[in-house]
Amino acid sequence: MPYFDSASSAPLHPVARQALLAALDEGWADPGRLYREGRRARMLLDAARETAAEAVGCRPDELSFTPSGTHALHTGIAGALAGRRRVGRRLVVSAVEHSAVLHSAAAHEGAGGSALEVPVGRNGAVSVDSFLSAVRSGADGSVAGLACLQSANHEVGTLQPVAEVAAGCREAGVPLLVDAAQSLGWGPVAGPWSLLAASAHKWGGPAGVGLLAVRKGVRFAAPGPSGERESGRAAGFENLPAIVAAAASLRAVRAEAAAEEAARLRALVERIRSSVARVPDVEVVGDAVARLPHLVTFSCLYVDGEALLHALDAEGFSVSSGSSCTSSTLTPSHVLRAMGVLSEGNVRVSLPRGVPEEDVTRFLEVLPGVVAGVRESLGAGSLGSASVPDAPGPDLVVDALGRRCPIPVIELAKVIGDVPVGGTVTVLADDAAARLDIPAWCEMRGQEYVGESPAERGVAYAVRRTR
Amino acid sequence: MPYFDSASSAPLHPVARQALLAALDEGWADPGRLYREGRRARMLLDAARETAAEAVGCRPDELSFTPSGTHALHTGIAGALAGRRRVGRRLVVSAVEHSAVLHSAAAHEGAGGSALEVPVGRNGAVSVDSFLSAVRSGADGSVAGLACLQSANHEVGTLQPVAEVAAGCREAGVPLLVDAAQSLGWGPVAGPWSLLAASAHKWGGPAGVGLLAVRKGVRFAAPGPSGERESGRAAGFENLPAIVAAAASLRAVRAEAAAEEAARLRALVERIRSSVARVPDVEVVGDAVARLPHLVTFSCLYVDGEALLHALDAEGFSVSSGSSCTSSTLTPSHVLRAMGVLSEGNVRVSLPRGVPEEDVTRFLEVLPGVVAGVRESLGAGSLGSASVPDAPGPDLVVDALGRRCPIPVIELAKVIGDVPVGGTVTVLADDAAARLDIPAWCEMRGQEYVGESPAERGVAYAVRRTR
Repeated sequence: MPYFDSASSAPLHPVARQALLAALDEGWADPGRLYREGRRARMLLDAARETAAEAVGCRPDELSFTPSGTHALHTGIAGALAGRRRVGRRLVVSAVEHSAVLHSAAAHEGAGGSALEVPVGRNGAVSVDSFLSAVRSGADGSVAGLACLQSANHEVGTLQPVAEVAAGCREAGVPLLVDAAQSLGWGPVAGPWSLLAASAHKWGGPAGVGLLAVRKGVRFAAPGPSGERESGRAAGFENLPAIVAAAASLRAVRAEAAAEEAARLRALVERIRSSVARVPDVEVVGDAVARLPHLVTFSCLYVDGEALLHALDAEGFSVSSGSSCTSSTLTPSHVLRAMGVLSEGNVRVSLPRGVPEEDVTRFLEVLPGVVAGVRESLGAGSLGSASVPDAPGPDLVVDALGRRCPIPVIELAKVIGDVPVGGTVTVLADDAAARLDIPAWCEMRGQEYVGESPAERGVAYAVRRTR
Repeated sequence: MPYFDSASSAPLHPVARQALLAALDEGWADPGRLYREGRRARMLLDAARETAAEAVGCRPDELSFTPSGTHALHTGIAGALAGRRRVGRRLVVSAVEHSAVLHSAAAHEGAGGSALEVPVGRNGAVSVDSFLSAVRSGADGSVAGLACLQSANHEVGTLQPVAEVAAGCREAGVPLLVDAAQSLGWGPVAGPWSLLAASAHKWGGPAGVGLLAVRKGVRFAAPGPSGERESGRAAGFENLPAIVAAAASLRAVRAEAAAEEAARLRALVERIRSSVARVPDVEVVGDAVARLPHLVTFSCLYVDGEALLHALDAEGFSVSSGSSCTSSTLTPSHVLRAMGVLSEGNVRVSLPRGVPEEDVTRFLEVLPGVVAGVRESLGAGSLGSASVPDAPGPDLVVDALGRRCPIPVIELAKVIGDVPVGGTVTVLADDAAARLDIPAWCEMRGQEYVGESPAERGVAYAVRRTR
């Protein structure tokens, strides 16, 4: 049963399992105690810290283990901002960071600080210049307190220009925190970053372990009540068996990645990218070259993301989606929104290490039929292949109020042939995905997106027929 | 090799190990996902929550899993205080709470709130009346924002009057948070408490899991950046295998406790209490009756706690100590200080479930010799048994400046016979333990503690010979 969502959580790596079992027997005592069980726990903890620090590329005493990647981000951001509060209270982040970073930014704003989201291009990457100018000088001319940039995006796999941004931040004297959750299992983060966060269950380590590296010389004041453990940066009893397993598996996956697994998965993803692009009305999103080896995301016009996930699940494939109709938020993924790409029928495939090639082959075999089946069930079966019929009539208004993604786009596609070339279809919609998907449809189908205007209810999206 | 420090961390219970192994295979996926691995994880998480809630005595939707007991306390205290910030900003705690509670109190004060520590008696328990009057009315006449009381003390095992305090708090309209870390494995917490925190590795569950129960109707605003998981009360990916193991082992240890293990350990501790009390110049501390079944603490005059721990470790026994000379803080445990009992040569024995009776027997056999050996090495071998010689001279001043516990007390004991009955020995000391241990020595040896006064260096402690 192929599991293609390793970017959410990877199955436990065999090395992690083995290390965890050994450490359950050897590492349950308090490493702060002086008796033999405590000394043994301390030795295991010290060894795990050395292993993990080597993989991160920092000194062991710069590295703390936290209860999760989210904790590492929350603590890293709050601690670095508090350490620099007299210098600058502006937090600069990319618009496509993990929600844990954006939640930290919101909390910082709630506490009187300011936060600035740097936009990304259609490929999902920030521009080095835009990012650095946001770092260097705010509306009030002040330098930023902290900048945060992910090493690679978790939804579309695009690599960010972290090394250049880190160099620019160092020049500006602003610490850069890198969220390396998606990339650390594949290699170290280049450049003179100041803080780094990661999460073990993303690389096949156990849940319950995050990493927070804080370089010597970075001003840092840990948030929350004080604690003695992990340099005061992670309160609570160390989850030692999981820490040992996390460190051992990080070393193991790095070795595998270097040997051949990264190249093998990169080639498999390349196959998916080219094959999926041949399915009618499907857009592959994210950078084609500067990307994670194992992750690819695409969106399918006229497709309901939840129905697509269910259909793939029924075929035995576990994938995730950034479509609004598969989440409880009613809005599409903030990453897809920031990129300005189609969100309907969105699928993220993130291959686990060791995935058999046959699983990918079968996925590519079933996908076109699954997509066609979902379109059929939505009455949009013929929209993909049909040419626009030439039956000119007056401008049209389509009322899609109260209808959820992908219906507004399907209704638009159904009637575009009913207006003359040069004529306009206006879609009334109150679904948040329409703002993203109607312009994306225009781009994909070569029609002109005129713009949006407020309507009595919802929003009016105007599209001009150009061919 | 007998491990007698289960109050720090208990070895993994076999049921926890088995459940953890099963859940490593079944429960590594994100329980928020819709595909089969996610649905399976969700089912495991829901089942674990029901099991744990039943053991706690709350509804499943009142219970969140946190990364540790410390996190549960930090979040519970900050969340309840924030929820009641318009009603009252005073936090009332006992003086013998776990350091995680006291650190939260310090953070609350640092943020402009106020915190009040209610003192305890020599047995380590608060008085219900004192606690409730601190809850009801502060210096400004206002009701408290939150009260915190442990169910049982972690260092001396004394049970607190939680049920009565909870009833009084409810009457006053003040939420009570109970730190049940030490007692939850033995039984539920009685009384109408509002919040409850606990830690799985204390009952033989894995590290990395805490419990936070917040009763419906309790105003609560979770601190820190927002998160979607665990009712917004614990950010970060759920540590599901450990959560499953925590819930399963809680049910198992409860069943064992009810069957006979609690009674068996209670009897073993009773044996230790009476046997240790027969060792010369040893004081057993903590309530003799209202106590945890498995924990006993005692202090030995003229003994260096660290040397005692090392000597016991060499005999194969792992215990912990609240003596200042075994910690990095230079001050004795805040619990012993609050109780006003002897801190030197302090030993906490907390028996793990299933401990063989022979281990306890052998401990009681070696203890007197180990204590005597440490006293001998400190030149205090004859102080315990020797009667006070009658060689009256003038009042004496003993300079113990720069000497650490237990030397100041040893120096005092060496010279008390050199002054006449009615005469005074003044000990100059700058070790923090002297403030606790010199009065405790007087109490144990029937001498009169006159009081302390500032000296040119350190503090002058005056003792009058009365026999």
